[in-house]
Amino acid sequence: MPMILTAAELNTSLNGRLEGNAEVEVTGPAPIESATKEEVTFLANPQYAKYAAETSASVIIVSKDFQRPSGFEPTIIRVSNPYQSFTRVMELFQQEDTGLTGIHEQAFVAESATIANHVSVGANTYIGENVEVGENVSVFGNVYIGNRVVIDKDTMIYPGTVIYRNCRIGKNCIVHGGTVIGSDGFGFTPQDDGHYRKIPQMGNVIIEDHVEIGANCSIDRATLGSTVIRHGVKLDNLIQVAHNVEIGEHTVVAAQAGISGSTQLGNHCVVGGQVGFVGHIKVAEGNQFQAQSGVPRTIDDKGKAWAGSPAFDYRQALKSQVVYQRLPEVEKRIQSLEQEIQRLQQQENKDANHDE
Amino acid sequence: MPMILTAAELNTSLNGRLEGNAEVEVTGPAPIESATKEEVTFLANPQYAKYAAETSASVIIVSKDFQRPSGFEPTIIRVSNPYQSFTRVMELFQQEDTGLTGIHEQAFVAESATIANHVSVGANTYIGENVEVGENVSVFGNVYIGNRVVIDKDTMIYPGTVIYRNCRIGKNCIVHGGTVIGSDGFGFTPQDDGHYRKIPQMGNVIIEDHVEIGANCSIDRATLGSTVIRHGVKLDNLIQVAHNVEIGEHTVVAAQAGISGSTQLGNHCVVGGQVGFVGHIKVAEGNQFQAQSGVPRTIDDKGKAWAGSPAFDYRQALKSQVVYQRLPEVEKRIQSLEQEIQRLQQQENKDANHDE
Amino acid sequence: MPMILTAAELNTSLNGRLEGNAEVEVTGPAPIESATKEEVTFLANPQYAKYAAETSASVIIVSKDFQRPSGFEPTIIRVSNPYQSFTRVMELFQQEDTGLTGIHEQAFVAESATIANHVSVGANTYIGENVEVGENVSVFGNVYIGNRVVIDKDTMIYPGTVIYRNCRIGKNCIVHGGTVIGSDGFGFTPQDDGHYRKIPQMGNVIIEDHVEIGANCSIDRATLGSTVIRHGVKLDNLIQVAHNVEIGEHTVVAAQAGISGSTQLGNHCVVGGQVGFVGHIKVAEGNQFQAQSGVPRTIDDKGKAWAGSPAFDYRQALKSQVVYQRLPEVEKRIQSLEQEIQRLQQQENKDANHDE
Repeated sequence: MPMILTAAELNTSLNGRLEGNAEVEVTGPAPIESATKEEVTFLANPQYAKYAAETSASVIIVSKDFQRPSGFEPTIIRVSNPYQSFTRVMELFQQEDTGLTGIHEQAFVAESATIANHVSVGANTYIGENVEVGENVSVFGNVYIGNRVVIDKDTMIYPGTVIYRNCRIGKNCIVHGGTVIGSDGFGFTPQDDGHYRKIPQMGNVIIEDHVEIGANCSIDRATLGSTVIRHGVKLDNLIQVAHNVEIGEHTVVAAQAGISGSTQLGNHCVVGGQVGFVGHIKVAEGNQFQAQSGVPRTIDDKGKAWAGSPAFDYRQALKSQVVYQRLPEVEKRIQSLEQEIQRLQQQENKDANHDE
Repeated sequence: MPMILTAAELNTSLNGRLEGNAEVEVTGPAPIESATKEEVTFLANPQYAKYAAETSASVIIVSKDFQRPSGFEPTIIRVSNPYQSFTRVMELFQQEDTGLTGIHEQAFVAESATIANHVSVGANTYIGENVEVGENVSVFGNVYIGNRVVIDKDTMIYPGTVIYRNCRIGKNCIVHGGTVIGSDGFGFTPQDDGHYRKIPQMGNVIIEDHVEIGANCSIDRATLGSTVIRHGVKLDNLIQVAHNVEIGEHTVVAAQAGISGSTQLGNHCVVGGQVGFVGHIKVAEGNQFQAQSGVPRTIDDKGKAWAGSPAFDYRQALKSQVVYQRLPEVEKRIQSLEQEIQRLQQQENKDANHDE
Repeated sequence: MPMILTAAELNTSLNGRLEGNAEVEVTGPAPIESATKEEVTFLANPQYAKYAAETSASVIIVSKDFQRPSGFEPTIIRVSNPYQSFTRVMELFQQEDTGLTGIHEQAFVAESATIANHVSVGANTYIGENVEVGENVSVFGNVYIGNRVVIDKDTMIYPGTVIYRNCRIGKNCIVHGGTVIGSDGFGFTPQDDGHYRKIPQMGNVIIEDHVEIGANCSIDRATLGSTVIRHGVKLDNLIQVAHNVEIGEHTVVAAQAGISGSTQLGNHCVVGGQVGFVGHIKVAEGNQFQAQSGVPRTIDDKGKAWAGSPAFDYRQALKSQVVYQRLPEVEKRIQSLEQEIQRLQQQENKDANHDE
């Protein structure tokens, strides 16, 4: 049963200025190029202005200075930031749809586990001994929650997630499918005979509040102490977080990045896709890393931008990239210089001989 | 119980020319260097010709111009393309072996789900509300299929796969273990206080027909609309496909590559391992990318080859790589030139003084 | 119930020299900066010496030449290698804690499977037909073990792991959560119409003894024959091992590295994070690869170090990196030279004209 909202109701929520039919009803949001007349859309990027004249949407959210084409039919809602307002519209239409209702008959929950009110647990999910699950937590099906794990309230754990023993997940977190939290850190001592001896990994992982973790990430437990993901961190998919790493508050990491053991990222950093950090370094707050960068050492400066492998100053890196692409030509220029210098030397010698 | 085929039967299937014992029986294919006398092998690569004289195989598939060594015992089947014919032989011997037989007693299938004929569902698999599963679909054990997912006929879903609500999988697809389809796109709006606010991810993933997806991939649902994997696409393992990406027909992507949000890859592209694409770009059909490339912008040309991070023309990139490896020497040549120029300048000054 | 050991007991195990209260009791190991008085810590890195004076730990393991600060209270145990001794201490305190006790009532084990003594199988785990599981093997919950898989004794399979049919795992192995072993290799034959035809993947994966594999790795089965991970190999998380790869004994591979089809890594190699190997190459034993390297060809030399993409000699690569970062300046030097040469040429022409 889809939700239905009128243009007037949307306008009230957005605190906008409505022009046109206030009573028209829409059942959901859509992009401008594919919206139907049951939908609401928005125009933020001027590149998409051409679609405005053609859109079938019944309601369109636009900026305050939008020029209404003649004969334009959709109801208009003028706001200061159409993109942000549209995000609000999406939130309005988003209905909770976990498909979960309480503890599924085919879930296994240990008797020693403490399950708060309004918790859902899906089929084929295992919740181990002495686990604590807070209010309003949704654990989907096919999840494994090891012994003594703590999950604080309002958190969602998607299907296929694995959380090893003793790890702690905060409030209002989201963990997507296939992610493994608390697997052993990668620690071995080389022996004299060339074999490696495993170093016990006895710590855990602590994930603070309002953290979102994408699909198929790996977050290793600490050797001792904790691997820590601070408040508000957002991790994309397929990210590697090694043992004893700490990621600072509100830092954002794109897909397939990797952070080696004991490295500390500061608050409010932005890490591009496929970036790698070596182990045992500290990165100050507010640093930004272009995709595929390799970060080889501690960064004490705050708020800088980096690129390259090894990473260096972003603007410098862009310039080096340009020269790199014409290195063969650069080398030819050196050859020309060498030939000309040789000619000048020969001329000089000739002159010298001539002078004698 | 192994399948048994005679050389004559193989020859008929391959439309080849048989020399030797047509009645010899083999039970399976094997590489030339390890085949036993119960096996059939092939010789395509001249580098392996030395193994032909020594192979224990009873049947060997060779090219039309193969020179039979004196005293050579195996039965020969001559074909125009031994490698392709051998692939055909492998198909002949491959017996369906899912280990699945109908709906396992320990599977959970929602009553509202529509399950066609000849569908198998393994143990510990969850099939949600209003899911539609077509004929001859095999869903292995420990799989999670969310509400309203549609899986068309003849498709195989391997163990440990997670498919979120509303996603659609086409006909004759294969999805390998641990892959997550339909997790939330990575979309957040930065707030004035430095926090990030989640943008609802309300779309889905559409996978067309004859698509194969490897193990532990992540394919995010669209913010609105669909992330689309077109007909015949082949994805290797550990690949990241972000929200609203579109991958064109018959494009092939190697392991650990990543495609950022809203990027569109054309048809018939070939993407190497660990390649990264930035978001919001379009790549025309038939482009090829060397492993570890980083693709920073839209590519309008068709059928070109690329390498490097950022990626540029493949041949140019190979040349730049060569010069890069001797950059220290290049710099020394510049130093020599500078010293020689300085000497010439000094000489010039001396001459000038001398002239005065 | 925590384990309790006295300083005297620790000292005996470490074969050390004790100074101070031999009867003091500790319940576990901790890092020097966070240890409480119930814990034992160590000092190996001189950078942490400042913490020694402040630590609350009751026992501290130090090197033989440690200078005891005046008024220093903890019990001291002097050893030749504090780091190695502390690893031993961690092993002493590590208590087996799988939370597993026999075959869980909610596990599915096929009747044809052979399960040795002292095997544990967790809830929601599937063990297929004709599987063989050796003594003391622990298979956690939510694991899928396909038909005819063999798992040798003393091995641990963590939750969420998927092992496809016919694969073999050796003794004393550890496989972490989310890892997929035996998925199809990525093999397709391009057809004349631009479609790809799947090459059957009929081989398996063989993992020898004492191998540890991290979380969310993908190890593909061979097309024919076996993908082989040799004795003592250690793989970190999110690693791609393609079909028919062989990884030599005691080779160590860091997170997110990828090894393409049919490539053979020698024994005792060390592979950094996010490294990529192209297919069909051989790497001799003892080679080391810096993080993010791309290895494009066979390496016959043993024991060398490599960096860069494409990878070349490590020391050379470090030098090239330095010059790369100032390429724009290098190009300016060439421009200056060109200008000066041009001036000299003009001067030469002027002189020549003057001479006439």
